[in-house]
Amino acid sequence: MQIEKSISDKYLKTYMAEDQAGSADLIAFPRSTEEVAEFMQKANSQNQHVVTVGSQTGLTSATYPTNHAWLLSIEKMNQIISLDEQTLTLNVQAGVTLADIRDYLKGTPYFYAPDPGNKNASVGGTASTNAGGMRAIKYGVTRDNIRGYDVVLANGEIMHVGSLNKKDATAYDLKDLFIGAEGTLGVITEMQLKLTPRPLYEKSLILGFASLDGVANTIFEVVKSPVQPIALELLEESGIHYSEQFIDKEMPAVPGQAFLLATVADNGHAGLDYQLETIQELGNKAGAIEARELSENEASEMWQIRDNILNGIVAQGDWKMYDPVVPNHYFTNLVIEGKRLGEKHQVKTGFFGHAGDGNIHICVMRDTQSDQEWEATKKAYEHDLFTYVANHGGLLTAEHGIGLEKKDYLSYFKDETYISVLRGIKKALDPKGILNPGKMFD
Amino acid sequence: MQIEKSISDKYLKTYMAEDQAGSADLIAFPRSTEEVAEFMQKANSQNQHVVTVGSQTGLTSATYPTNHAWLLSIEKMNQIISLDEQTLTLNVQAGVTLADIRDYLKGTPYFYAPDPGNKNASVGGTASTNAGGMRAIKYGVTRDNIRGYDVVLANGEIMHVGSLNKKDATAYDLKDLFIGAEGTLGVITEMQLKLTPRPLYEKSLILGFASLDGVANTIFEVVKSPVQPIALELLEESGIHYSEQFIDKEMPAVPGQAFLLATVADNGHAGLDYQLETIQELGNKAGAIEARELSENEASEMWQIRDNILNGIVAQGDWKMYDPVVPNHYFTNLVIEGKRLGEKHQVKTGFFGHAGDGNIHICVMRDTQSDQEWEATKKAYEHDLFTYVANHGGLLTAEHGIGLEKKDYLSYFKDETYISVLRGIKKALDPKGILNPGKMFD
Repeated sequence: MQIEKSISDKYLKTYMAEDQAGSADLIAFPRSTEEVAEFMQKANSQNQHVVTVGSQTGLTSATYPTNHAWLLSIEKMNQIISLDEQTLTLNVQAGVTLADIRDYLKGTPYFYAPDPGNKNASVGGTASTNAGGMRAIKYGVTRDNIRGYDVVLANGEIMHVGSLNKKDATAYDLKDLFIGAEGTLGVITEMQLKLTPRPLYEKSLILGFASLDGVANTIFEVVKSPVQPIALELLEESGIHYSEQFIDKEMPAVPGQAFLLATVADNGHAGLDYQLETIQELGNKAGAIEARELSENEASEMWQIRDNILNGIVAQGDWKMYDPVVPNHYFTNLVIEGKRLGEKHQVKTGFFGHAGDGNIHICVMRDTQSDQEWEATKKAYEHDLFTYVANHGGLLTAEHGIGLEKKDYLSYFKDETYISVLRGIKKALDPKGILNPGKMFD
Repeated sequence: MQIEKSISDKYLKTYMAEDQAGSADLIAFPRSTEEVAEFMQKANSQNQHVVTVGSQTGLTSATYPTNHAWLLSIEKMNQIISLDEQTLTLNVQAGVTLADIRDYLKGTPYFYAPDPGNKNASVGGTASTNAGGMRAIKYGVTRDNIRGYDVVLANGEIMHVGSLNKKDATAYDLKDLFIGAEGTLGVITEMQLKLTPRPLYEKSLILGFASLDGVANTIFEVVKSPVQPIALELLEESGIHYSEQFIDKEMPAVPGQAFLLATVADNGHAGLDYQLETIQELGNKAGAIEARELSENEASEMWQIRDNILNGIVAQGDWKMYDPVVPNHYFTNLVIEGKRLGEKHQVKTGFFGHAGDGNIHICVMRDTQSDQEWEATKKAYEHDLFTYVANHGGLLTAEHGIGLEKKDYLSYFKDETYISVLRGIKKALDPKGILNPGKMFD
């Protein structure tokens, strides 16, 4: 196995662009589960901390190495092993990216449903954060689309969890334990992904509203209706503005300050039309100024704008993003509160997110603040935001995970009993505490 | 809290009708989470074994008490607390039965999707076995329909897991850990159940085939198609025969030896017709002798026959049931093998099950065997059956759990590493081993 002591910055920093590169003594590039096992045995026997890194697209510094860690890169575990049409399963190594999977499946009638924003993410990384994305409203999150995987435990033992079966009452659910565990319980190496038959037809529509308040009812009614859009995204003027600037394009002219972008899919035109009409009707009832079907071209441009909001925000300078989730009926209230808190703490904000899931992305953006002011502003904003989210039955993170960025706030959402159970499970699986220490909770 | 030392047999035996009543020193009837916590604190401090019992409808002796256990009955935790239409959630105590929930929701546009055979099961019991049922093919199993719950840990601490949010990347997935744990990790006391809007129209059809072989392709093609039946059940002549005898009714005349019973649902007639036609077409292509829509009356009778197969088998005398699951494409092979093994071991068999999920119920039935022969026959049959299932990527249990009945066979499916991780988690959550000891694994 290739092991190097000279480590490029790209493995020592994440998408969060930490000020300083992290600290690691070596980096290994295994190509198989067995090589990962060998590496973990060695690390375990020498009490070395191990941080597994994928494509470094994470948004919480969860793969930021500290304190002379050993890095384990899954970059070279990039093989798509097989497509099993009998069980609609794709077998891949964990270093394969979402873009690789999309390209591989292009010529088939199937797709892999999870659709997080950054298509360069490794699929192992998306498992470790239980990533969500645009299509979760219909197809669920990453957890729901992984049938099984091999995982290497802290002591180097290899375990297979999950199966290709549709039901399972065979002892504790280990499959769901390592998903979302941010590499603190084991290293996922080879995965069986659930594929979904691709619907034949797809259509997008956009609904424009005078203000955010008008959006709320539409979301609520659509989610309760028999229609199941494959995406239902909130777009709001600030986010659109940054994205338009970034890609130098303007969104199709639709009157309004806040927008819902919906995509529906079906295997027949009748079903497609039924869904489109239902959403238009519900939007009109809830006070939409316009509810318009988009041509293929317009839809493609609109989605490009949606996909580039974060890039547009990042291009403005320093930023920090939060991904809270609340029960659906609080969704627009959360956006309104997020804006109000921006005014209170005098910080620029940008919003976009998955309206159908109750999951909003809130970015705070640095303007003229000094370093010290910027740090203080973020802390103050976070405290107020997460207090509000916790008081409304929401969660700290919907799809990005905790990492280093949010660990101080876990206690806003989970009590001491809960956190001690988390610690008990960590200790049972990694008694020496060598896997990604210091992330998620202490 | 009501505590009694004289214990009725109904708490000491399960649906499996064990030869002897189990052994317990007392039984408690708490009415709240706090009373359960108080009871567990006492049990923990006195190192007493605790077996939680619901309606005793389990099929694996998982609630059979041994060795002077303390019984904790959730029978009096039978309150439906509230219906939250904003999040489509039903709050219930764990002792509420599936029938209670069905009745409560009758006048609403919602239903609770999991539909295990025995409607007297407590919903807490169905959580502890991750029960499946008829509608899992479309709506998932119990796990997929529980948003959150309160659980009392071995030491008496109360923990809330899950939430009313649609996404969650907030640390380890504890919600799925206690579901399917058969009361060995904690006591589930109060639950938030996910409700589903009831489709407006429903229709059943039955497909008759000359033999089981003909059924396979239909199942495979239906599952791959855009149509999602809410139920897709295999009925086979022996099972039908016992049920017809039991309820003294005959199934609608459809030619064939093996049948698929499908129910589809939709909010429009067009969608309903499309689904019916697709299934008929796929059935005809796969060699169905007849593929017939059922009138409302016929459908109701057909489902009554389906629901009474187990009762019909139980009425014949001693029996034992298995609930293996295999990847879909092996489903009919498994039924054929199950029959062949019946001939090999000279034991009567009955089959019915969830064709769309790859999950078959296999009953062996005692005929003229002596006690000793009957025990030996079961052991021999089980060994061969589970060897076959394991060799075809299947699982020991799809929806009934392990309990006492199947624990000897867990090692056919899970290796030593896996079982030691199970043990590690058990130890982390119940260090004294007081919760339902001896069940599932040693």
